[in-house]
Amino acid sequence: MTRDRLYIYDTTLRDGQQTQGVQFSTAEKIKIAASLDALGVDYIEGGWPGANPTDSAFFDARPDTRARFTAFGMTKRAGRSAENDDVLAAVLNAGTPAVCLVGKTHDFHVTTALGITLEENLESIRASVAHVVGQGREALFDAEHFFDGWKANPDYALDCLNSALTSGARWIVLCDTNGGTLPDEVGRITADVIAAGIPGDRLGIHCHNDTENAVACSLAAVDAGARQIQGTLNGLGERCGNANLTTLIPTLLLKEPYASRYDTGITPEALQGLTRISRQLDDILNRVPLRQAPYVGASAFAHKAGLHASAILKDPSTYEHIDPALVGNARIVPMSNQAGQSNLRRRLSEAGIEVPKDSPALARILDIVKDREAQGYTYDSAQASFELLARGELGQLPEYFEVKRYKVTVERRKNKYNRMVSLSEAVVVVKVDGEKKLSVSESLDEAGSDRGPVNALARALAKDLGRYSDLIADMRLVDFKVRITQGGTDAVTRVIIDSEDSAGRRWSTVGVSPNIVDASFDALLDAIVWKLLRETGA
Amino acid sequence: MTRDRLYIYDTTLRDGQQTQGVQFSTAEKIKIAASLDALGVDYIEGGWPGANPTDSAFFDARPDTRARFTAFGMTKRAGRSAENDDVLAAVLNAGTPAVCLVGKTHDFHVTTALGITLEENLESIRASVAHVVGQGREALFDAEHFFDGWKANPDYALDCLNSALTSGARWIVLCDTNGGTLPDEVGRITADVIAAGIPGDRLGIHCHNDTENAVACSLAAVDAGARQIQGTLNGLGERCGNANLTTLIPTLLLKEPYASRYDTGITPEALQGLTRISRQLDDILNRVPLRQAPYVGASAFAHKAGLHASAILKDPSTYEHIDPALVGNARIVPMSNQAGQSNLRRRLSEAGIEVPKDSPALARILDIVKDREAQGYTYDSAQASFELLARGELGQLPEYFEVKRYKVTVERRKNKYNRMVSLSEAVVVVKVDGEKKLSVSESLDEAGSDRGPVNALARALAKDLGRYSDLIADMRLVDFKVRITQGGTDAVTRVIIDSEDSAGRRWSTVGVSPNIVDASFDALLDAIVWKLLRETGA
Repeated sequence: MTRDRLYIYDTTLRDGQQTQGVQFSTAEKIKIAASLDALGVDYIEGGWPGANPTDSAFFDARPDTRARFTAFGMTKRAGRSAENDDVLAAVLNAGTPAVCLVGKTHDFHVTTALGITLEENLESIRASVAHVVGQGREALFDAEHFFDGWKANPDYALDCLNSALTSGARWIVLCDTNGGTLPDEVGRITADVIAAGIPGDRLGIHCHNDTENAVACSLAAVDAGARQIQGTLNGLGERCGNANLTTLIPTLLLKEPYASRYDTGITPEALQGLTRISRQLDDILNRVPLRQAPYVGASAFAHKAGLHASAILKDPSTYEHIDPALVGNARIVPMSNQAGQSNLRRRLSEAGIEVPKDSPALARILDIVKDREAQGYTYDSAQASFELLARGELGQLPEYFEVKRYKVTVERRKNKYNRMVSLSEAVVVVKVDGEKKLSVSESLDEAGSDRGPVNALARALAKDLGRYSDLIADMRLVDFKVRITQGGTDAVTRVIIDSEDSAGRRWSTVGVSPNIVDASFDALLDAIVWKLLRETGA
Repeated sequence: MTRDRLYIYDTTLRDGQQTQGVQFSTAEKIKIAASLDALGVDYIEGGWPGANPTDSAFFDARPDTRARFTAFGMTKRAGRSAENDDVLAAVLNAGTPAVCLVGKTHDFHVTTALGITLEENLESIRASVAHVVGQGREALFDAEHFFDGWKANPDYALDCLNSALTSGARWIVLCDTNGGTLPDEVGRITADVIAAGIPGDRLGIHCHNDTENAVACSLAAVDAGARQIQGTLNGLGERCGNANLTTLIPTLLLKEPYASRYDTGITPEALQGLTRISRQLDDILNRVPLRQAPYVGASAFAHKAGLHASAILKDPSTYEHIDPALVGNARIVPMSNQAGQSNLRRRLSEAGIEVPKDSPALARILDIVKDREAQGYTYDSAQASFELLARGELGQLPEYFEVKRYKVTVERRKNKYNRMVSLSEAVVVVKVDGEKKLSVSESLDEAGSDRGPVNALARALAKDLGRYSDLIADMRLVDFKVRITQGGTDAVTRVIIDSEDSAGRRWSTVGVSPNIVDASFDALLDAIVWKLLRETGA
C-alpha cells in the first residue's frame, strides 16, 4: 500500500488566540512556536500581521523553524487592486514563506456581509492569490463558511475554490466556520468537492468544535481524501474551540487505518513530548490542565472502577486503547474505596516501594486509606500524600523535622490613607536536627498586596528548615483547591495543593480539617516532605 | 417520512461517578436525578446497589421519576446459579423497574480476566438475563468491550448478544469500553450487527471519549440503526469521560438529519433548561464550568474576532450554528451594550428593583459588574451580592453598620495531653448607631473541635450588632464554596456563601480577595446586609 503524506497545520497562535481570555505576548508566541517546531508540525500560522502590535512584533522576531511560517490575512477588498490594498500589503510585508488568505465562498455572506457582487468576490480571490504567488510565496486559500456555502449554492462555492486553485494556490482549505456541520456531512461534501475536480492533495480541512465533533469532522475529511489538517494545541479557539491537534496527532500516528496509511512530519520520539507540550501551553495561559483530556490529561489513563483496576493489573490492554508512554503520559490506578491489595502494591511499586505480597502492612494501609477517605481525604487526586502515608506505615519515612507549633494572624484595618487593608502574618516553630527554629513571615507580594494566611504560612515554613532549606528552594505552589466536603457527619474543608519544582516534577498533596488554615498547613507540610524524600533519595 | 423513537439513557450517577475525584452523596444523587427527570431522559441509571453504602442508600431513597430507574450490576459469576449469586441479588433487591447487567463479549476477556470457558460465559449471560426478566423487570445487557471483541472473534461476540436477546433482554448495548474505536468503525460494526440479525430498535450504544470521538461514535451508531444512546451530563466518566449527553441531546433535537428523523422524550421547553442543568452539576461538584463546552459553555456563543462580532450584529446566523436561547444559553458580543442593559433591567426587576429604561445608572452598573467580574467576582451564582451592588449604585442601600476592623488568629500547638490542637479566635469592631462595639469569639463546636477562622469571624460579627442582632438571629450559613480563580493577572480566592433563615429564604453572596479570610469576610458581610434589607423592608 502506498503511504500518502498528511500535512499538519497549526493555528494556535492565530485562531487559538480567539479564545475568550487568551492574549499571547510576543515572548509566549516565540516559546509556543519553538515547541510546535520540535513536535514536527508542517505549518505554523503565527497571526495576522498588521492586525495588532503583538502579532506584528512576533513576525519581526519570529524564530527560525523547520516548519513553514505562515501569515494570515484576508483577500483584497473590492474596488482596489491587490497591490494597493494596505491590509494585504501588511500581511505580505511579514515576509513569511507561506501566506493564508481567508475569503468568502458562501453567496449569502458575499452579498450580505461584504455587500459586493458574486463576480467581484471571485475577482478578489483570483487577484489576491495571484499577488501572493507572484511574490514567490506559497499561497493558501481559506474558504470561509464553505460547507454552508456549498449547501446553499454549490456551483458558486466551487467557482470560488477554482478561482483560487487556477490562480496558483497550493492549498484550498475547507473551513466550517460556524462549527455546525456534522462529520457525515463533512465527509460527503469533501468527497463531492474532490469528485468536482479539486484534487485531494490540494485540500485542507479546518473545523470548529461547536457540536464536539471537530476531531471527527477532520478525520471524515481525511477519509474522503483531504491531505491537510488545521487545528490548535489543546483545542484552543473561538467559542468552543478549533479541532484539537493534541488529540488528532496521536490518533493519526497510532490508530488504524491512519497509522498504516499516512506519513506525517512527526516522529514517534517527538510524539512522546506531546503531554509536556500540552501542559506547557496551559502553564503559559495559567490554566488548570483538563484532567480528562484525551491522550494527555492526568486522568486519561486513570482507572478507578474496581473491576477495571484489577484487570489492568493483569494486562493493561484490557482497559487501555494505547500505551500511555507513547504520548508521554502515565497510567494511574488510584486509591479508592474499592481498591484491593494488588492495586495497592502496584501503586507502591510505582513510587519505588516494593512490598511483599503477603505483608500485613498492605491490609493496614488499606484500612487507613479507607478511614481517611471517610474523613474527607481523597487520595486519588493526591498521590504524594498517599505515598507518605504508606511510607509512614512501612517505617520508610524519615522525620526530617518536627513542627512544634504555628500561629497565623489576619488583620484588616484602615491604613494611614484611611483605606481598608489586610495583613497576614505567620509564625512557625520547627525542630530540625535537635535545634528549635522560629520563623516569621508576612505575605505581601511585590505589589504590596496581602496574599493571605496560607501564603504567609508557606513562606514561614520554608524560611528556615536548616540543612533542608536549600533542597526545597526550587519548589513552587502552582494550584490550590478547596472544597467543603463531608467528614463523618460534619462538614470539613479539604485542601489539595499542587506543587512543582525546577526538575519538572509535579505532585499533589491533601489536607483535611474543619479549619481551612489547618487543612492547608497539612497539605503544605506533605508537599515539603515529599520533595525532601525525592531530593534525599531516602 | 416515519419518525423513529430514540431513547436517551443517562448514566451520570453510575459511570459518571467513575470520574477521578467524583463521589456523589445520596442527597446529591437525588438532586441530579430530579434534574434528569425534568429534562426528560428515558432511563436514569442510579448506581450499583450493594457495591457501596452511598449507592445502596440512594436506591432506598430514590425519588419518584417518570424516567425508568435502572440499577446496574454484572452477570452472575460462573459456578453458581443466578438465584444464588449474592452480588446479583443485591442489584435486584433495589427493586428498580429496569436492570442493566454488564457481561463479557470479547473472548480474550472471558478467558483472561474471568478465567472461565466461552460457553460458561454464554450461560452466565442467559441465566442472568432470564432471572431479571423472570422477576418482571426490564433487562438490558451491556456488552463490554464489544467492538474489540467483534474484531477479534465476531462469531463469539454475536453469540453473546444473541444469548441476551433470546433470554428476553429489551436492549443490547454495544459498549466501547476502552474508548479507542473510531466513528467510522463504530458505524460499520453496528451496521454489521444489525445485518447479522440483532434488530436496531433493540440496540443501544455506549461510548467513551478517549479519542475525543464519543459524540461522533454515538451519532455513527444511530446512523447505522441503533436506537438507544447512553451517556452522561457534561461528559463525566472514567478516564476521558463518557459520551456527553449535554452535547448529544441538542444535536439530536436541533440538527439535521436527526431533528426531522427522530422523536425523543425531551421537549423544546425542557431543552431550554439544559445550560442550567449543566451548571448545576458543576456546582454540586465544585468544578469550574468549562467555558468552551458546546452549546452550554459561557464561551459557546461568545464572538471575539472583530470580523465575526460586527457581522453577528447584522445577522446572528452569520457566525452561529444555532440560536443560543434554544438551549438556555446566551450570546456574548463584547462590544454590544444594548443586550446588556435590557438583560440587567430584567435581573433588577427580579430582585424587586424597577429602573426606567433610560436611566444612566444602568450603564454604570454594567460597567461595575464587568469590572468586578474581571477581578474574579461572579454574580450569576451570587444574586444577593448583585442586588446589593445595584442598590448601592442606585442609592437604595441603607448603611446599617460600619465595620471598623477585625483580627483573626489561628494557632496550632500541643494541648496538656500532648496532642496537637488548633484554636481560632476573632475580634470584630463595628460601629452601630454611632456606638462602637467590640466582639470576640472562638469557633469551638459542641464537641470542642475548632471550626476555623471563618466560623470565628461569623460568630464575632453576629454577636453584637445592636438593635439589628435580633433580626439576624435565625440566619445560618449552609454552604461555603471556595475557588481559586483569575483576578486580572493574579490568582485570587473567590468565596461564595449560601445562607438560610427560618422563613425558608436562601441567598448567596460572594467575596473575592487574594486573602481567603478577607474574601470570606466580605461574603459574610453581604449575607448579613441582605438579610437586614429583607427584615427591615428597606
